[in-house]
Amino acid sequence: MRILFLGDIVGRAGRDAVIARVPELRKRLSLDVVIANAENASHGFGLSAAIARDLSACGVDVMTLGNHSWDRKDLVAEIDGLPNVVRPLNYPPGTPGQGSTVFTLADGRRVLVANVMGRLFMDPLDDPFRMTQELLARHRLGMTVHAAIIDVHAEASSEKWALGHALDGKASLVIGTHTHTPTADHRILTRGTAFQSDAGMCGDYDSVIGMQKEAALARFVRKMPGERLQPAEGEATVAGLMIETDDATGLARKIAPLRQGGILSQTIPDF
Amino acid sequence: MRILFLGDIVGRAGRDAVIARVPELRKRLSLDVVIANAENASHGFGLSAAIARDLSACGVDVMTLGNHSWDRKDLVAEIDGLPNVVRPLNYPPGTPGQGSTVFTLADGRRVLVANVMGRLFMDPLDDPFRMTQELLARHRLGMTVHAAIIDVHAEASSEKWALGHALDGKASLVIGTHTHTPTADHRILTRGTAFQSDAGMCGDYDSVIGMQKEAALARFVRKMPGERLQPAEGEATVAGLMIETDDATGLARKIAPLRQGGILSQTIPDF
Amino acid sequence: MRILFLGDIVGRAGRDAVIARVPELRKRLSLDVVIANAENASHGFGLSAAIARDLSACGVDVMTLGNHSWDRKDLVAEIDGLPNVVRPLNYPPGTPGQGSTVFTLADGRRVLVANVMGRLFMDPLDDPFRMTQELLARHRLGMTVHAAIIDVHAEASSEKWALGHALDGKASLVIGTHTHTPTADHRILTRGTAFQSDAGMCGDYDSVIGMQKEAALARFVRKMPGERLQPAEGEATVAGLMIETDDATGLARKIAPLRQGGILSQTIPDF
Amino acid sequence: MRILFLGDIVGRAGRDAVIARVPELRKRLSLDVVIANAENASHGFGLSAAIARDLSACGVDVMTLGNHSWDRKDLVAEIDGLPNVVRPLNYPPGTPGQGSTVFTLADGRRVLVANVMGRLFMDPLDDPFRMTQELLARHRLGMTVHAAIIDVHAEASSEKWALGHALDGKASLVIGTHTHTPTADHRILTRGTAFQSDAGMCGDYDSVIGMQKEAALARFVRKMPGERLQPAEGEATVAGLMIETDDATGLARKIAPLRQGGILSQTIPDF
Ligand SMILES: [Fe+2]
Ligand SMILES: [Fe+2]
Ligand SMILES: [Fe+2]
Ligand SMILES: [Fe+2]
Ligand SMILES: [Fe+2]
Ligand SMILES: [Fe+2]
Ligand SMILES: [Fe+2]
Ligand SMILES: [Fe+2]
Repeated sequence: MRILFLGDIVGRAGRDAVIARVPELRKRLSLDVVIANAENASHGFGLSAAIARDLSACGVDVMTLGNHSWDRKDLVAEIDGLPNVVRPLNYPPGTPGQGSTVFTLADGRRVLVANVMGRLFMDPLDDPFRMTQELLARHRLGMTVHAAIIDVHAEASSEKWALGHALDGKASLVIGTHTHTPTADHRILTRGTAFQSDAGMCGDYDSVIGMQKEAALARFVRKMPGERLQPAEGEATVAGLMIETDDATGLARKIAPLRQGGILSQTIPDF
Repeated sequence: MRILFLGDIVGRAGRDAVIARVPELRKRLSLDVVIANAENASHGFGLSAAIARDLSACGVDVMTLGNHSWDRKDLVAEIDGLPNVVRPLNYPPGTPGQGSTVFTLADGRRVLVANVMGRLFMDPLDDPFRMTQELLARHRLGMTVHAAIIDVHAEASSEKWALGHALDGKASLVIGTHTHTPTADHRILTRGTAFQSDAGMCGDYDSVIGMQKEAALARFVRKMPGERLQPAEGEATVAGLMIETDDATGLARKIAPLRQGGILSQTIPDF
Repeated sequence: MRILFLGDIVGRAGRDAVIARVPELRKRLSLDVVIANAENASHGFGLSAAIARDLSACGVDVMTLGNHSWDRKDLVAEIDGLPNVVRPLNYPPGTPGQGSTVFTLADGRRVLVANVMGRLFMDPLDDPFRMTQELLARHRLGMTVHAAIIDVHAEASSEKWALGHALDGKASLVIGTHTHTPTADHRILTRGTAFQSDAGMCGDYDSVIGMQKEAALARFVRKMPGERLQPAEGEATVAGLMIETDDATGLARKIAPLRQGGILSQTIPDF
Repeated sequence: MRILFLGDIVGRAGRDAVIARVPELRKRLSLDVVIANAENASHGFGLSAAIARDLSACGVDVMTLGNHSWDRKDLVAEIDGLPNVVRPLNYPPGTPGQGSTVFTLADGRRVLVANVMGRLFMDPLDDPFRMTQELLARHRLGMTVHAAIIDVHAEASSEKWALGHALDGKASLVIGTHTHTPTADHRILTRGTAFQSDAGMCGDYDSVIGMQKEAALARFVRKMPGERLQPAEGEATVAGLMIETDDATGLARKIAPLRQGGILSQTIPDF
């Protein structure tokens, strides 16, 4: 199966780039599934149901979230009506929405997509190690699902790498989000799980992680609340990772980063 | 000037790879200066004077440190005798060692190298924004120094990007360290400063940020102190960034990542 | 000199209690100076200029702030016109307002009042140890000022105690704020400085640190943003510490906590 | 039932004071049960089995722990043989030891004692709210147990207060530990649960939370590892809280702090 995962979509610049490029990428790369982290899609903070539908319409099959899940209060009410939106699975029991979903392709193949938050330097949610292992014990790769994608929304590289190794052999892809910075450490781990500690962001990189520079810099320097942070509006780079999996085992065979548009160095998978 | 900056050297694997490769890289890439972060060079924790000398001998001109600066207590006593070792400049007044140094090439060109720590999710040291700006007001790029390299040892991508923009036009290179993960966001900022939010590590990437997997994973899962963390001992990837600067202005003209050896995707500058 | 310091005034309940009680307390306890932390006076978040004037009018001579200093944006513009309001002195240079003030009594005696923020588990500001020591080197107790009061607005008890010892003999009183919990560890330190690690809050204690229980509890349990936190509105306890100092040395001779009104155990200084 | 809870016992000074005073306090106050937090009993860091036995022998019926539970590695092996030692119940499944115990008095009355850690500014363990509520659903106050004591080992006053309200009516006492600072906010909550946000420490208060001043202060000021922290060795104050409960309901009828010996203000329950 040919899968593209896109990092945090930030604001209008990020959305416009994703909406413009995903249709052609699906064709050019013969993609079977496209997943994107959309926690910053609505003006940098959260995801509205309307924007979730726009992203679906352009070819994003499943959207994941993160610490900004509930920035848009309307999503709290609407998330249960959005079957292809996934929020972190380690929120407490009773949290609206779902922590994972099984997306079924037109040809019947099944893809588990889950979202989990790290705890180091972040909100202390339930244990991401235990919860992802329990999830992957229920959805067996190569048995009940053809592929399994885990979006690890976390700050610390150590926690992301640890989770990658913990799930190695049980997921097709463990991919980090949240730092808004693409990493060059993508690889297939020992037991066949593809890994990248951060997919990067789909946003304007002439910024502070997607936000306009002046206001973001002022917060660090002045230590006062200032103007509200606004997403940067220059051309976005669409950033993510593509993998190809073996449908029999669900494990990864090929892996390559993708960076298209905007000011970052450009790369596109060649398989 | 042709400059190579290498990310955190971790343990024997990292040292061996740096010592083996730097001599040939200096020739092949016609490097004028090589700088490396060495805060994890001694068995993953700190830098001993003996290892500092070994790294110097192989062609590392200046070494920077970070939150592990004082893991080796002997360095506290010895650092003042090591003119090419730089510790974070935002430690309190009275801290042993120096926060920056001006390294002079054989041909007389002068390169400022400084090390500064971020404060987000890290120890609250003095203000890295103010201190680097004061430093670069004293050492004017293209005037008193031909190049200026700032190693921003920090956890949060936002703080690193903010510091990059804050120093844009005043330094040749602002480069992150500490996450032990190379980022694919290298670029030359608007006013001519090269930037990468993390140089990555020189270490074995089949690990948790350079440490053996089992013990590092156990800490996250079991929440008990366990075995001491040990550096992973597989072949290291030497990871860093190369830039070429204009000696007249000190600003960057070219930029490219370098990843050689080990299990990461390989790349070498082609200029 | 007879000095009363009151902890964080929270919302209407806290203000009403302070305004009702301070005039009688000034008389009953023959107070020379009353200081109060007012960072939560305006509906729990910040201090408006109007409320600062109300508190002044009732007999609060100097008000201190903390991490909520700028919750009311209007104070940023107005603080320079409020000579008896003090914000943390370890904000960066250029921050509006003042980090300390010398309040002069009708009889000419001078009282230094400063506010400083801790850094452990809080925003990384400038070094509170260095800055308070520099301040107290400029304002010599028993020489240029008759008393010196340092409000240490901090989370960690260890940092507050460390600062108490660091300033012992140089200040009349080092008193903690921010936890909204009165501590029973008040005492006069070895070299004569009075100390209490937290003065407590002037607010309704049938609450979560002054905020209504249900919403505050929901945040911990549900891990979602919910209703906005609102100050609890039951009768407040006015909580603080009284000291008597020797005008010749500025050091403390007597110390006793004060808790009046509301549901906490009641106590009033008997000297 | 007449219950005394003592805060964190720190080092030899704390142990000596507890061992000297508990026998007379049991008599004088007609105590039925004595519980103490012992996470710092062994030279400030952890609890050895030998010291656990010494504390038992002097009349401490149950000991609780905290973030220092495993500082003494030998306790990991020995804790399962110590039926009256309780470690935080929100460690991951599989952690040695027990998170709660039911202590049976000579007359057959049963007292549940549990230990739980907060997560704000601390290690992200399992949810303390959910786990204590599940525990108290299994052990019904006034039904299966005559009293229930919950030691909330936590940094943030807000989290302790929130947990107090969450358990109000379901426990006899919710008492904080960890800050090593006795608070003056003890009271019986609306539905009958006694509460104090911190019991304080049994240790020498001429210190930084029980550790010798110079080394503890140096860490804040110098930002370098220095001498190892050592417990202060002056006379300790035994600090804690006494409650009297109604055996029929398990709820609290009376509450008063206790501070005996050392340099803090002295108080002893008068009921
Ligand atoms: Fe994001
Ligand atoms: Fe995020
Ligand atoms: Fe490092
Ligand atoms: Fe580091
Ligand atoms: Fe406050
Ligand atoms: Fe505060
Ligand atoms: Fe403790
Ligand atoms: Fe503790």
